[in-house]
Amino acid sequence: MSLLDSTLAAISPVGEDASSAALARLNSLTKPLGSLGRLEEIVCRYAAIRRDPAARWGGGTIAVFVADHGVADEGVSAYPKAVTIQMLRNIAQGGAAISVLARHFGLGLEVIDVGVETDTSADPMPGVRYRRIGAGTRNFLREPAMTAEDARRAIEAGIEVAREAAQSGVTILGIGEMGIANSTSAAALLSATTGVSPDRIAGRGTGLDDARLRHKVEVIRAALALHRGALRDPLARLAALGGFEIAAMVGVCIGGAAHHVPIVVDGFIATAAAAVAGELHPALREHLFFAHRSAEGGHSLALEHLNARPILDLDMRLGEGTGAALAMSAIRAALELFHNMATFTGAGVSQKIQ
Amino acid sequence: MSLLDSTLAAISPVGEDASSAALARLNSLTKPLGSLGRLEEIVCRYAAIRRDPAARWGGGTIAVFVADHGVADEGVSAYPKAVTIQMLRNIAQGGAAISVLARHFGLGLEVIDVGVETDTSADPMPGVRYRRIGAGTRNFLREPAMTAEDARRAIEAGIEVAREAAQSGVTILGIGEMGIANSTSAAALLSATTGVSPDRIAGRGTGLDDARLRHKVEVIRAALALHRGALRDPLARLAALGGFEIAAMVGVCIGGAAHHVPIVVDGFIATAAAAVAGELHPALREHLFFAHRSAEGGHSLALEHLNARPILDLDMRLGEGTGAALAMSAIRAALELFHNMATFTGAGVSQKIQ
Repeated sequence: MSLLDSTLAAISPVGEDASSAALARLNSLTKPLGSLGRLEEIVCRYAAIRRDPAARWGGGTIAVFVADHGVADEGVSAYPKAVTIQMLRNIAQGGAAISVLARHFGLGLEVIDVGVETDTSADPMPGVRYRRIGAGTRNFLREPAMTAEDARRAIEAGIEVAREAAQSGVTILGIGEMGIANSTSAAALLSATTGVSPDRIAGRGTGLDDARLRHKVEVIRAALALHRGALRDPLARLAALGGFEIAAMVGVCIGGAAHHVPIVVDGFIATAAAAVAGELHPALREHLFFAHRSAEGGHSLALEHLNARPILDLDMRLGEGTGAALAMSAIRAALELFHNMATFTGAGVSQKIQ
Repeated sequence: MSLLDSTLAAISPVGEDASSAALARLNSLTKPLGSLGRLEEIVCRYAAIRRDPAARWGGGTIAVFVADHGVADEGVSAYPKAVTIQMLRNIAQGGAAISVLARHFGLGLEVIDVGVETDTSADPMPGVRYRRIGAGTRNFLREPAMTAEDARRAIEAGIEVAREAAQSGVTILGIGEMGIANSTSAAALLSATTGVSPDRIAGRGTGLDDARLRHKVEVIRAALALHRGALRDPLARLAALGGFEIAAMVGVCIGGAAHHVPIVVDGFIATAAAAVAGELHPALREHLFFAHRSAEGGHSLALEHLNARPILDLDMRLGEGTGAALAMSAIRAALELFHNMATFTGAGVSQKIQ
């Protein structure tokens, strides 16, 4: 049995008992019933995923997976491919948005090269973990982006990140990514997964103009036609259209669910991974928090299809896990309230009249 | 010249130069142009209000004003009036939601009794500042809630809180409140200020059932009829329908604007104060951040009327400044990104192709 299969087999429904116990405590705290709104839902969901009525916090980590994409050769990105490795270094050196946010919020940051074109593993960049599946994917306008075997390996790299995080005591994981042209890969995947047409899903990514956005949509359309035989099966679809970093994020979703670690799904690209992961096990979806409504393309439509209401709506479209980090800070705040507010009895506050 | 008049006279338009300079720096940071979305708007707005292109952070404080309301006698709240003083103590002792959030986010917390029914100032509660205007307002279903003189004194109490905060180096202030029945006062004020009818503005507050919500709407309707002569002038309207804590929050908005300190407006009740304050000076509105879309009554409609898009939308309806504290943490994160991200040049990251 592969690690992928055994991890999927370990996923079970979330703990409704823990959720009910958490709600009972929420209702004893000095506030009108339900008045913390979605923060209360977050606490209950977190308790359910952790199977922990006390909803303990052990630390959060953002895992950022970085890889290159063959489809970048089609001119679907506003930035050159070299930016992937430059940003890998920038993230690891602390200058990228996610580096700043992780530091500010006291979150762990794992930066994982799962397939940047240039291999730097022989002279490794400080702060980067190397779990390279290849030197970027193939161009999916011509052939599948990766083999089934490579897709599985990339997923398993993500599973291992989740497993190690769980073993180290981390109780929540965010997924983010960097990879020039990966919004094209994600849009193709989301279109195939949700049935929403490419022109309604694909967005400007890092800043395409109208003409190049039209071109990007045509590339996706052609790729969906080329790979139509592979689209029904989620793993074959992922191999045909995905990226190594997207597959790795699928793996974190699976591993997180198996190890009872909530996953905070960042934006557009991470949602493409979460959508695929959700098809692999019926109980997986309940283990996910959706961080924010991205301004990229049809992210709203994709969230609707997944019946997901994100925590934040800040018109962000940066990726890297930046939305996940912000949402995780809201989750953390919700847990702080849960743990530290006084009860009506403890504080001597009168209850409701009616 | 009263403190109110001189402070209003000190308000000027925000600094567009500082905003433009901040935007130029944002555009030099390693991220696609504009990809931090509303976080970038927040940085520019903060820089503009502070007249500081570097958008420096000097610390944030939440000011929670607490007072009682005569209209509570009409049975418009689900909780007894005694809860006001009980919650004043709970907030000051650290057990309330805002106490937990302020501590967690490293924010200052000012708890100010501006008119709780029972006067504890002779044997003061630790952590409470006493700026009492009276022992609760009068019942505005029968007579004006306060005199014009008391309204001015309450506003000036808020102005002084803002002035002291500015002098202590605090660079952002949140406003929150506690006061049984104050959602009735706020709904009446918001209805009179925005023209939206009471049944579309008034909400369940701390948890009214349908029958008592209908009663609350009738109380507001009757009060608006009784005080119709006073509704056009914002200060007369505030005196007729407001509360001491609402008037004090009006004062913080005025004082914040005059001292170049951004104000983070909490939810339903604080928005009623912000709406009145906005009428007192044409440049005041630009000094406000609206923290969140409250689940209370017609808060969405009120925000629309004010042309305000809140930062968060978490179905909260607790008050106390809890939404302001959460929004302030997002503002703080936006500033951290602005201050600490690498530039394209500094990090050696290639620019856009087109």
